[in-house]
Amino acid sequence: MNQRELKNLLAEIRDGRMDLDEGLARLRHLPFEDIGIARIDHHRELRQGSPEVIFGENKTPEQLLTIVSAMTGRQRNILVTRLDEEKGGLLVSRWPEGDYDPLARTFCLQLSPLPDLHRGPLLIACAGTSDLPVAREAMVTARMFGIEVEELTDVGVAGIHRLLAETDPLSRAAAIIVVAGMEGALPSVVGGLVAVPVIAVPTSVGYGAAFGGVAALLGMLNSCAGGVTVVNIDNGFGAAFAAARILRRQPA
Amino acid sequence: MNQRELKNLLAEIRDGRMDLDEGLARLRHLPFEDIGIARIDHHRELRQGSPEVIFGENKTPEQLLTIVSAMTGRQRNILVTRLDEEKGGLLVSRWPEGDYDPLARTFCLQLSPLPDLHRGPLLIACAGTSDLPVAREAMVTARMFGIEVEELTDVGVAGIHRLLAETDPLSRAAAIIVVAGMEGALPSVVGGLVAVPVIAVPTSVGYGAAFGGVAALLGMLNSCAGGVTVVNIDNGFGAAFAAARILRRQPA
Amino acid sequence: MNQRELKNLLAEIRDGRMDLDEGLARLRHLPFEDIGIARIDHHRELRQGSPEVIFGENKTPEQLLTIVSAMTGRQRNILVTRLDEEKGGLLVSRWPEGDYDPLARTFCLQLSPLPDLHRGPLLIACAGTSDLPVAREAMVTARMFGIEVEELTDVGVAGIHRLLAETDPLSRAAAIIVVAGMEGALPSVVGGLVAVPVIAVPTSVGYGAAFGGVAALLGMLNSCAGGVTVVNIDNGFGAAFAAARILRRQPA
Amino acid sequence: MNQRELKNLLAEIRDGRMDLDEGLARLRHLPFEDIGIARIDHHRELRQGSPEVIFGENKTPEQLLTIVSAMTGRQRNILVTRLDEEKGGLLVSRWPEGDYDPLARTFCLQLSPLPDLHRGPLLIACAGTSDLPVAREAMVTARMFGIEVEELTDVGVAGIHRLLAETDPLSRAAAIIVVAGMEGALPSVVGGLVAVPVIAVPTSVGYGAAFGGVAALLGMLNSCAGGVTVVNIDNGFGAAFAAARILRRQPA
Amino acid sequence: MNQRELKNLLAEIRDGRMDLDEGLARLRHLPFEDIGIARIDHHRELRQGSPEVIFGENKTPEQLLTIVSAMTGRQRNILVTRLDEEKGGLLVSRWPEGDYDPLARTFCLQLSPLPDLHRGPLLIACAGTSDLPVAREAMVTARMFGIEVEELTDVGVAGIHRLLAETDPLSRAAAIIVVAGMEGALPSVVGGLVAVPVIAVPTSVGYGAAFGGVAALLGMLNSCAGGVTVVNIDNGFGAAFAAARILRRQPA
Amino acid sequence: MNQRELKNLLAEIRDGRMDLDEGLARLRHLPFEDIGIARIDHHRELRQGSPEVIFGENKTPEQLLTIVSAMTGRQRNILVTRLDEEKGGLLVSRWPEGDYDPLARTFCLQLSPLPDLHRGPLLIACAGTSDLPVAREAMVTARMFGIEVEELTDVGVAGIHRLLAETDPLSRAAAIIVVAGMEGALPSVVGGLVAVPVIAVPTSVGYGAAFGGVAALLGMLNSCAGGVTVVNIDNGFGAAFAAARILRRQPA
Amino acid sequence: MNQRELKNLLAEIRDGRMDLDEGLARLRHLPFEDIGIARIDHHRELRQGSPEVIFGENKTPEQLLTIVSAMTGRQRNILVTRLDEEKGGLLVSRWPEGDYDPLARTFCLQLSPLPDLHRGPLLIACAGTSDLPVAREAMVTARMFGIEVEELTDVGVAGIHRLLAETDPLSRAAAIIVVAGMEGALPSVVGGLVAVPVIAVPTSVGYGAAFGGVAALLGMLNSCAGGVTVVNIDNGFGAAFAAARILRRQPA
Amino acid sequence: MNQRELKNLLAEIRDGRMDLDEGLARLRHLPFEDIGIARIDHHRELRQGSPEVIFGENKTPEQLLTIVSAMTGRQRNILVTRLDEEKGGLLVSRWPEGDYDPLARTFCLQLSPLPDLHRGPLLIACAGTSDLPVAREAMVTARMFGIEVEELTDVGVAGIHRLLAETDPLSRAAAIIVVAGMEGALPSVVGGLVAVPVIAVPTSVGYGAAFGGVAALLGMLNSCAGGVTVVNIDNGFGAAFAAARILRRQPA
Repeated sequence: MNQRELKNLLAEIRDGRMDLDEGLARLRHLPFEDIGIARIDHHRELRQGSPEVIFGENKTPEQLLTIVSAMTGRQRNILVTRLDEEKGGLLVSRWPEGDYDPLARTFCLQLSPLPDLHRGPLLIACAGTSDLPVAREAMVTARMFGIEVEELTDVGVAGIHRLLAETDPLSRAAAIIVVAGMEGALPSVVGGLVAVPVIAVPTSVGYGAAFGGVAALLGMLNSCAGGVTVVNIDNGFGAAFAAARILRRQPA
Repeated sequence: MNQRELKNLLAEIRDGRMDLDEGLARLRHLPFEDIGIARIDHHRELRQGSPEVIFGENKTPEQLLTIVSAMTGRQRNILVTRLDEEKGGLLVSRWPEGDYDPLARTFCLQLSPLPDLHRGPLLIACAGTSDLPVAREAMVTARMFGIEVEELTDVGVAGIHRLLAETDPLSRAAAIIVVAGMEGALPSVVGGLVAVPVIAVPTSVGYGAAFGGVAALLGMLNSCAGGVTVVNIDNGFGAAFAAARILRRQPA
Repeated sequence: MNQRELKNLLAEIRDGRMDLDEGLARLRHLPFEDIGIARIDHHRELRQGSPEVIFGENKTPEQLLTIVSAMTGRQRNILVTRLDEEKGGLLVSRWPEGDYDPLARTFCLQLSPLPDLHRGPLLIACAGTSDLPVAREAMVTARMFGIEVEELTDVGVAGIHRLLAETDPLSRAAAIIVVAGMEGALPSVVGGLVAVPVIAVPTSVGYGAAFGGVAALLGMLNSCAGGVTVVNIDNGFGAAFAAARILRRQPA
Repeated sequence: MNQRELKNLLAEIRDGRMDLDEGLARLRHLPFEDIGIARIDHHRELRQGSPEVIFGENKTPEQLLTIVSAMTGRQRNILVTRLDEEKGGLLVSRWPEGDYDPLARTFCLQLSPLPDLHRGPLLIACAGTSDLPVAREAMVTARMFGIEVEELTDVGVAGIHRLLAETDPLSRAAAIIVVAGMEGALPSVVGGLVAVPVIAVPTSVGYGAAFGGVAALLGMLNSCAGGVTVVNIDNGFGAAFAAARILRRQPA
Repeated sequence: MNQRELKNLLAEIRDGRMDLDEGLARLRHLPFEDIGIARIDHHRELRQGSPEVIFGENKTPEQLLTIVSAMTGRQRNILVTRLDEEKGGLLVSRWPEGDYDPLARTFCLQLSPLPDLHRGPLLIACAGTSDLPVAREAMVTARMFGIEVEELTDVGVAGIHRLLAETDPLSRAAAIIVVAGMEGALPSVVGGLVAVPVIAVPTSVGYGAAFGGVAALLGMLNSCAGGVTVVNIDNGFGAAFAAARILRRQPA
Repeated sequence: MNQRELKNLLAEIRDGRMDLDEGLARLRHLPFEDIGIARIDHHRELRQGSPEVIFGENKTPEQLLTIVSAMTGRQRNILVTRLDEEKGGLLVSRWPEGDYDPLARTFCLQLSPLPDLHRGPLLIACAGTSDLPVAREAMVTARMFGIEVEELTDVGVAGIHRLLAETDPLSRAAAIIVVAGMEGALPSVVGGLVAVPVIAVPTSVGYGAAFGGVAALLGMLNSCAGGVTVVNIDNGFGAAFAAARILRRQPA
Repeated sequence: MNQRELKNLLAEIRDGRMDLDEGLARLRHLPFEDIGIARIDHHRELRQGSPEVIFGENKTPEQLLTIVSAMTGRQRNILVTRLDEEKGGLLVSRWPEGDYDPLARTFCLQLSPLPDLHRGPLLIACAGTSDLPVAREAMVTARMFGIEVEELTDVGVAGIHRLLAETDPLSRAAAIIVVAGMEGALPSVVGGLVAVPVIAVPTSVGYGAAFGGVAALLGMLNSCAGGVTVVNIDNGFGAAFAAARILRRQPA
Repeated sequence: MNQRELKNLLAEIRDGRMDLDEGLARLRHLPFEDIGIARIDHHRELRQGSPEVIFGENKTPEQLLTIVSAMTGRQRNILVTRLDEEKGGLLVSRWPEGDYDPLARTFCLQLSPLPDLHRGPLLIACAGTSDLPVAREAMVTARMFGIEVEELTDVGVAGIHRLLAETDPLSRAAAIIVVAGMEGALPSVVGGLVAVPVIAVPTSVGYGAAFGGVAALLGMLNSCAGGVTVVNIDNGFGAAFAAARILRRQPA
């Protein structure tokens, strides 16, 4: 029941076509979301301009085809994540206008113009080349939100001069996503250099006592730089989503 | 060596009072920060309007008195965190104009007007009454940044209607800090209701398999609501610092 | 806004005293719970006959006195858990009609007759004498729900004949709470002997590789007896609450 | 030795055909279960109407064929769990009257009418579509116990309105199984809405700090909703078994 | 019901004083242990010559006095473990003939001659002086079983020559308990030198990544010496108990 | 350098054919083991009658063929463990007189008569059918030591009557190896029934919170039955080796 | 900007071809590393004579070919680690002068003479044959640094005499890398025998409670031998790198 | 038996005062270390100039007095670590010439001149002021080895310019100990700046997900800077000991 239907219901009462008790009963049994309460409008606000997202891992090729087909009807932009090359190829052969990124393991199908709702640029900094897939997932996601993205790669803390040489992108950024595996130290250094929001993404890069990203996760949670926040291991998508929340332009 | 001194050095070279080799040598041995590189100015920007912060735990009363005394000279506002009642009382007896909050375990000494650099309001929502100390630490910290704060307490997910009744503060918030212990589920629900940034703070509230906040931390890192970010267990201070990064007004 | 107010609102519309847009606006901003949705009534059903519960740990004596005083006004029965002897004594000295149990570490203040809403008996079986505090917390809690309780103590699996000798209480039980620390094996044996619900409570009894109850918790989660369910470490209260959900009599 | 044989033994003694010492010796060496002690009858009671269950994982196709063949002789209904498609197909080709469910990964062979020994309905609620296999395993299992089942899917807490819209199935349920991965928050919300038993099943859905279901498991063990009980990760079968213990009708 | 009573029951049947059905009924309701099944005799065999043992930790002084008093009536030897000096002094002041060992934290009250049922000697080897309390608990326990004990202290693997110099006690031992904290490597070296049973006891000695004995426990479980077995952290009592099982003389 | 050579060296000194300094120098550079110290003889004692053992996992087929070929020269019996069917078949095709056991995943090549150095029988009890591979590895190993073995399978604690019916093998055993996965409770029950040594072997059987055998391992380390010792997860070989240490006959 | 360019800049100022403000501006925007600060020279010093290193795991064959091709232009020696046989074969077929070691899983391409900058020899001691791949990775790495290496294999602590027989290589070593899995005890023994630096490398050899090398790692971190240092699990490369730091000859 | 005695023994044989068999017997029963094998001399070499060390934690004041008194007789320098102020004061009152450092929690009693056996200087860098106690323990230890020490404090990575400003001490250092808690990132940055050995010491500074130093430990083990080695959490002593091994001057 949308707003119009609710108005109709009230109109029927006003016009005497429905008595009070029936109106009351129907109101009480309305599904929650149909009442149109404000908080849902808020979230819809976020969904404006956001892509439809499908987590591709563990889904069969058939399931993916079915889901994406169903979504194309709504004319929203579509983003599929965690997609190996075989599944990616399948989607591209079905929707050749789509774009599969083998590094990010994402498939993008842009059916509408990208929205222009966010400030920028968003800087995505990456400690080592092995962290690139996660960084790229964040980049693809952010771009599907219409966010301007810059990249900085291979600026791990063991070669600190490489990061420090990049004054300009650090200065320009409206927010920074920092992607790092192993000891996960890069967000602490970046957080100490800039005043804008820093979102840290631990990656599962490493071996042995890296414990699949736990070492990096703990490092980032214990960052000595104030106000660094963290998302789940390898969650490039989530970091970009958080950036979208942050960079959303305030209404005038 | 500040900018003026650097200019003087160049002037001496220009004027022939210093030869090239000596100039080169002095430049090469300059301490890094004295060259006045932009990124440090950036961070200084953040520090504008931020309080000086002292982590009070593990410091002796004598150490605290010494450190706070030294800081009062700079006319910056001072925030001491993780302060038990005995140490808090000591600081209040020495600086009666300061304010000790026994719930937040903080001491604030405001020596300058609070800055007006951030948007607001920041909503701080709290799952249970046992989570209040961490929520209050976040609140005190945010206020020392000059951020307008609203509070929502005891809105745990087992009584979901209590949260859902609070349409207005959820609608108004420019960002939300969500504080929860035990299963740490509140950020997922809040993140699904609003479009603004959500910063989750796990608390060490609970016992047994709560593992001192680990259950809540893992819950928040795995939040099914997109774009929720997380800080360390009980880190109310860090959450408010992250909010300050986010809410900082953009220059015109 | 309760049902009557909602009816009034509709009446105003019907009578033309409120136009459609204003009615729509007011409906959209209704706090959720005031619409009177059934599911809240459901939970109220559970609360019928249940005690008011206060988790006593980490609360100061002053806080406890304040909270209990406030509750006595509602004429509901009151249960305070995790209460050391000092705080327990304080409550007894203030409400001499209350009952402090130093083993269970509970304080009960019965202001109304206990309800008669549950089937029984509930058997609470306990592996070792060190597990007794948790078993007793479960017992006190269940009794405050009006549930008839039987106890079986010191029936650990290393002396399996002691358990097997207790045919009668095992036969009689409508549900069984099994409390055990160390390896937590008792629920598996009990679950294999009976057809009624078995709720397992791991305790923090043990040392070294008991890891504060983790060994028992894991043992119970991996029980080879089908259909055993588990609550948190030392959570005697929660086990009794679960039993109350199970033993609640169905309406005729 | 069954009851009749025991009676014969006593008759021989009575009739003087066996002397006391031999009778004593034979009694002392009786296998335990042959004495016919009541507690075994109890469990048999549970087994009435329950299916024979085979855990299919790690078993070879040959082992499965052998075991199922042997069981068909007893005319009990048969349930095989954790069965991949290849093994499932093999069983179906051998017993075409059986039913393989590729989502639940179960094979059911109904050789007798389903029993009518339990109250209902049992609601099985599921946070996300990735949790469906575990929910379906619970559903298939419960149905093999003759329990009426309803399903509620994709009601994760990040879209809380979807759950709250489902007043009716929540009201009707005699017990609820809640299946969730990631942060495992759904049981807390459901437990706060209803008064009936809630059995929580963590799933291994998620990645990174989900740790294969540990995050969900901890979340559920620390649920802030009272009286929620938990089974092992991905243990849909065990949750349904626990529901069967709970919903078993009391004798008149 | 002991053997004599069981015989009487059969005699009553034989003599016609009890009919068959009553005899059957009484037999079926016999408590399990009264039937006098052999396996209980077996364990009684172990208990012959073993002390009565009380785990002193977490027991109040009053509880200890009550329990020990009750036990003195049975004329069995009594061993109380995990006893701090205050409680130990209390027991000694009550039973001056008893012996409190402050290092082992044990109290022994010998009311009967020590049994002579075990082979020996048992060697108790100890890596560092900090491991001595656990080694001593094992020694006191073994002596209460009547086992001859030898000690070897401070033979940690970082000074391997100290161990290798002790040819004689290693050659003589009928079994060896090896007590070590930190990396727990001593059992591997000892296990490679001797052919007799080696029981490893990890201790909680160490700090940081020793994790309260977990490092030593893992080291011992992964010992590269074949056939080394392990008990719980700090469980000197359990190691001596295991040695008693091993060293028990076979009947001729 | 063996004893004879050492004697020759001394004789050369005595006879003046070697001067003191050269003798001293040669003594100081003697390899340790050539001095013929007793402890090495001790271990050799254990190796008498023990098989040569090869850990087959991670070894290539070629490596296995090379190692076994080299060993056949010494006329010792050979045991290869952790051997999949492919590698096992390879060894059998090369040494048809050998025996590959696909359940135990072992290959035995008996080149000498089995020794008769140990008491028996050794009972190997096993909780569930999934634990059989580990139990069988223990059995094969023990038999290669010449130990008489009995088996007891599927006596898990959820059907405790099955274990209790087995009075005779429990009574006969000189030592017992107990193999169990999931909650690992069987050793506690067995340890309470018998007086002989009990060696517990946790298996990796289970899923979810079984954590690959950790739940069973912790359960066994925390056994409430006194004197139960534990070996590594799935270490059937090690348990049998420990049994060989225990059951070795004492010299007359 | 190198030193010469910096000098030119100052010369332009001196000569009046550049005014002060422009010089200041250009200095302030210099990339950090171009200023030629000493610490970068230091590291370059380490890189003198060190190989270029590529971590081969997770890289595709194409990526490897591209990276190695690019590097051959610089005439530095090249070391690729963590390389399976297929990728190794590919590199050898492309650069037949290179050397693939299937045990170490390394590919070396020596394009320049090995440097002679380090003392030696470096001893690499290895507990068991399964630890050899990690030891060999360390050996290959050290040799690419031009370090003389000796090896000692199969000197695990369960056969301590094998280690103690190796007086000479232990005496000669300028530093020792000790590689061990399982309980990781070898570094403690070696550390107690020698005065030179000891670097411990835990390996993932083992099963069950070895937890992929965690047991060995914890053992080494808790070594009772003073001054033993540790690198990550299986990090043979890192250990050799640390040895290169240690063994680097001091300038005269 | 020292070398002289061994020579005497051989002389007695030569001179006919002892026959061959007695000589052989005495040689075979020599305690290992008395034979004077070279490897022990090596370690003695390390002990030359090293202090005698006592781990003060868990030792009673009486034990400390006894141990130190006994040691003073040997005229070696004495270092007691992990000493609280009460125990430290006790030692100072007994040996006023000793030095108690309340920050390092050490007591030094210098009875001989400090040795001059090591190169230097050793730089000890420290991330935050809370890490100072561990850094100071390292410093005191190193000085008792006679090593020249420099300190660098409060150079955490969130203020990277503070570290980068310290070109000189970084350039001078012969080896560097890096002490850091929280995320433990400092060793990675330092390791990337210098070519000398870097020993990382994680500290237990931090809270929540710092897990008592585990986060820092994991960070350091996963350092992206090559050749960084690690010691146990808070093990300042061990780091200095490792530095002593490294900095020991080679014989000419």
